[in-house]
Amino acid sequence: MQQRSEETHKVLISAAEELFTQQGYVETGVAGICEKAGVSKGAFYHHFPSKQALFMELLDSRLAGLDVVIGDIVTGVKDVPDALMNLASIGTIAFQADSKQIPILLEFWEQARHDPETWKAAGAPYQRYQDYFTKIIQKGIDEGSLQPVDPEDASRLIIAVATGLLLQGALGQGEEAWGQTIEKYMEILIDGLRRRS
Amino acid sequence: MQQRSEETHKVLISAAEELFTQQGYVETGVAGICEKAGVSKGAFYHHFPSKQALFMELLDSRLAGLDVVIGDIVTGVKDVPDALMNLASIGTIAFQADSKQIPILLEFWEQARHDPETWKAAGAPYQRYQDYFTKIIQKGIDEGSLQPVDPEDASRLIIAVATGLLLQGALGQGEEAWGQTIEKYMEILIDGLRRRS
Repeated sequence: MQQRSEETHKVLISAAEELFTQQGYVETGVAGICEKAGVSKGAFYHHFPSKQALFMELLDSRLAGLDVVIGDIVTGVKDVPDALMNLASIGTIAFQADSKQIPILLEFWEQARHDPETWKAAGAPYQRYQDYFTKIIQKGIDEGSLQPVDPEDASRLIIAVATGLLLQGALGQGEEAWGQTIEKYMEILIDGLRRRS
Repeated sequence: MQQRSEETHKVLISAAEELFTQQGYVETGVAGICEKAGVSKGAFYHHFPSKQALFMELLDSRLAGLDVVIGDIVTGVKDVPDALMNLASIGTIAFQADSKQIPILLEFWEQARHDPETWKAAGAPYQRYQDYFTKIIQKGIDEGSLQPVDPEDASRLIIAVATGLLLQGALGQGEEAWGQTIEKYMEILIDGLRRRS
């Protein structure tokens, strides 16, 4: 019984993921997800309180994968500027792999901001990355490899660049130049943060 | 007759602006704009081919005001890093004055990207600022006040930061910290670009 329930959970998520990619987040409804998954609405609501909740779980599982990769990079690193450049490469790869998902993320954000509870949940990964970069930058300042900037502001700056590139990618303005090359822009930023001897 | 036509044009724009602010871009229709303006649909389409076209005119007129201020700053400047910091202050002021308009801009972008013609028009100001920053940065490199970066990439980086901060502002995530303080983040970026003697 337990096993069948887990199976249903997975089937619902993969049906939803496929529909989000095909027709967008807003256009996809619970009814459509149930139809595609061959599951009743009752079963859906047994697993997820809402479409938003399903999307958040989908997003969390992707970010969890990314978190592991990031953790490995940072623990193995000796020089903070180099670690930041490695993170930018990871960002580029994640961006290229998931570029079709970005417009969906934008649609989700746009809807979520009208719903305080979902919005709070949607902000959690953002806050996590914010704290994360703050710590890395503080480490770089302590070891003398980075300029003595405010680590929290520098962290927000990095996230603003990433968010800006994501938005450009989602909107597809200047498609050929953006997104594929997060590293190029981050390199300028990180070189600027690097302490000159 | 000419005068009455100009008057109708203005009345339509100000009615649309009010409705966009009150109920958002997507929720506002041509019928609603006409009703608020006390103008027939025929008259609307005499002035604007679509709601998108009206929005673009509204956006262009705001950006035209900003362009004059930017032009004044740049012609009067001696040191490029200082000019960039002045531009960041202008950005902060524009952001604070127009913060309610930013979610509307986001809705417009989201709709416009499905419509190739509007989308091309929506990209024009972006390309203009892109070229603009490229020129300023090239000037800084030539005068020796900026690091010898790729001016086009550095320009895109600055625009990515601005876009990222706009998005954060529009979505209201971490409201107290973002947007009001474009200068704080730009200062870290510009200091990084500054050539050390």
